[in-house]
Amino acid sequence: MPTVNPPRGMRDFLPADKARRERVLAVIRDRYRAHGFDEIETPVMEDYDRLHAGIGGDNEKLAFNVLRRGLDADAIRSGADDPAALADLGLRYDLTVPLARFYASHRAELPTVFRAIQIAPVWRAERPQKGRYRQFVQCDIDIIGDATGRAEAELVVATLDTLDALGLEGGTIRINDRRALDWMLESFGFTADERPGVLITIDKLDKIGPDGVTAELRERGATTAAVDAFEAFLRRPQTLEFRPYGEGQIRKALPEGVPDEIVVDLVAIGEAVGAARPSTGAGAGSGIPIVFDPFLVRGMGYYTGTIYELAHPSVDYSLGGGGRYDGMIGRFLGQDVPAVGFSIGFERIVDLVADGEDAAASAVVLVHDRDVPVAELVALKAALVAEGARVRLEQRTKNLKALLERAAADGYTAFAMVSAGALRADLELKPLS
Amino acid sequence: MPTVNPPRGMRDFLPADKARRERVLAVIRDRYRAHGFDEIETPVMEDYDRLHAGIGGDNEKLAFNVLRRGLDADAIRSGADDPAALADLGLRYDLTVPLARFYASHRAELPTVFRAIQIAPVWRAERPQKGRYRQFVQCDIDIIGDATGRAEAELVVATLDTLDALGLEGGTIRINDRRALDWMLESFGFTADERPGVLITIDKLDKIGPDGVTAELRERGATTAAVDAFEAFLRRPQTLEFRPYGEGQIRKALPEGVPDEIVVDLVAIGEAVGAARPSTGAGAGSGIPIVFDPFLVRGMGYYTGTIYELAHPSVDYSLGGGGRYDGMIGRFLGQDVPAVGFSIGFERIVDLVADGEDAAASAVVLVHDRDVPVAELVALKAALVAEGARVRLEQRTKNLKALLERAAADGYTAFAMVSAGALRADLELKPLS
Repeated sequence: MPTVNPPRGMRDFLPADKARRERVLAVIRDRYRAHGFDEIETPVMEDYDRLHAGIGGDNEKLAFNVLRRGLDADAIRSGADDPAALADLGLRYDLTVPLARFYASHRAELPTVFRAIQIAPVWRAERPQKGRYRQFVQCDIDIIGDATGRAEAELVVATLDTLDALGLEGGTIRINDRRALDWMLESFGFTADERPGVLITIDKLDKIGPDGVTAELRERGATTAAVDAFEAFLRRPQTLEFRPYGEGQIRKALPEGVPDEIVVDLVAIGEAVGAARPSTGAGAGSGIPIVFDPFLVRGMGYYTGTIYELAHPSVDYSLGGGGRYDGMIGRFLGQDVPAVGFSIGFERIVDLVADGEDAAASAVVLVHDRDVPVAELVALKAALVAEGARVRLEQRTKNLKALLERAAADGYTAFAMVSAGALRADLELKPLS
Repeated sequence: MPTVNPPRGMRDFLPADKARRERVLAVIRDRYRAHGFDEIETPVMEDYDRLHAGIGGDNEKLAFNVLRRGLDADAIRSGADDPAALADLGLRYDLTVPLARFYASHRAELPTVFRAIQIAPVWRAERPQKGRYRQFVQCDIDIIGDATGRAEAELVVATLDTLDALGLEGGTIRINDRRALDWMLESFGFTADERPGVLITIDKLDKIGPDGVTAELRERGATTAAVDAFEAFLRRPQTLEFRPYGEGQIRKALPEGVPDEIVVDLVAIGEAVGAARPSTGAGAGSGIPIVFDPFLVRGMGYYTGTIYELAHPSVDYSLGGGGRYDGMIGRFLGQDVPAVGFSIGFERIVDLVADGEDAAASAVVLVHDRDVPVAELVALKAALVAEGARVRLEQRTKNLKALLERAAADGYTAFAMVSAGALRADLELKPLS
């Protein structure tokens, strides 16, 4: 007997879970569309070379690779040292690399500023652990062709609006800019070679704290004077979050002398988000739902400007994030096109959304005796379906109570007993507790 | 520069195509749910051994296999003669094998009679050609745990209702029973060993005609007397379709002496479909939308009872089909459970569905001057979204006409010009041609 579990780290979804997922996806799709984004789809597989071109960062190592077809044993032996000889395709590990490839392929057919929705699974061979899956759904929106902060503002407002529509009001955005980070590290005296490693360490600030960060930087052998300057900055008597959000606050959060062009973009994004989502009601005093965080890094190497993460008061982890990656499209198109995206962590969000009922007017279980002719049953069912109901047939069992409880748990709201010869008019619909 | 096309035989979907696909899928999901089916989902990958256990028929050879992770060059060399050493996972080539595995895994959590919806992509390394793709969506409904013709009737009625809801009224079902085929071939004198090969030949009847079929059977070296008897039967002066559908017609369509139990099931299914979908209107004279076809075979080896195909007057190919496969669940569960399914060919159906407009009340393009501050634009957009509109921002270009035509083609219905300082009340919405 073969095992009957799904592959390691991957999940089956039973009806209740699947219905909840589809309900959440429908809301996300609807809100993103309302904000002027258009859904596209790419194949789950991409060419091996494309997935391993150095733009996917650490995720490239986690790719599932698909065995080239038609290889005989000799070809396999002679290709043993060259993965590309054995695998010509792979499963995508994110939706950003496929989007860049898609845009390069279809640019002529798309609007000048293209706002894309992608809602689709990705695969990563992560070490299985609680909350980490090897197949999971990503919901990405991206704006390609707009170099201004308008794009970031549209992404942030669409995302917060979507959270609201899911009943998750109160989402907030932490924002930073890779250019600000880079300028800051340079101003402390880190060399260009040191900076990528320094960013990896700063990214751990939430986990290991200022002491851990400075210790790790010294271990790395970074320039001593630079680490000292960074440490002094890090230990200023100041919180990490800077409210209210505005030019003065952003300048105060960075070392002196930050170039205007970086600050201007960040200020414009904050003003736009504030204008689109004016604070009202109970929490209004806290101002706009965006905070500047000069130590936000985000892992991917392809970011070139703004980066941000989505937080929600109900959880202490990020629900999504994104950033600007103006260099990536050029890798496929041969011509740089500005691009910026926001990905929400669907698997995290779906667990936070309250259970909802289907909008279906009524869901009816027809409990029938064993001897009711098939034609009568199927005709009764069709009649109720035509009236707008969702209908399940159940043959009566000894334990009627258990049968009805099961149906109620499955979302059915009414039942009727059916004997041979019954017509639609004879059915007495009773509510299910 | 890497190539920017999707992998061979796979497709990108641009916004208009993707919207159409999602619209059709929403209708299918809604109708299947109304008929009491529940959607489930399984991972796209299954264990290699499971996909290559001999139940997937010819499709097993078309599977994309996923390279085992962590293999070094030595392991690859020593596994060169054994595909299972190189690949531990594969992409599913259908939704039936995963469903059987899912049911065996989760039986205790499912209703006694489980009605499943699966709407998901599958992958087959077919030779690319027009209309054949290496990734395509299947829409399957299956009923597990009901051995009676009630299950077939529910599947057929749900499918025809779904076609109606898509605007494809007039669908018809060709039905047969593997037990009838087997009994018929035995009655002609084909040996048990010969019969599987004979079925493969009969399956070509539509393509090569009665002459081709009998010639191929003789070439195969089948028992001569059996081929003669079959040929005589095939050449009876009678059409292949037997209307009206009923016991007398089914008996007439088969050699004399067919066992009652086979006929009884087929008659009950026809009666139930007729009762649920009474003929009315123009085509009413032709009776119920189901015909018996004693030469319908269908390729898969796992069918054990009824088999059927879905036809529509607008095309000369099948739009879907299915059958009973009472033996398959037992391969995973160790205990036989009756099962029957109906798969509609989504890729074929989506091309037949008329273009529809979205239900969205209004879709507005805000055409703005270059100097409108980001905060004003994003706030205006948010205000219209909050009113229920779908909204796209467009910066004004020299060729305003082209911009508006493009927006209309993308489904937008109105536009407004936006200058700096404009408030919501200042916007003058004008219809797009």
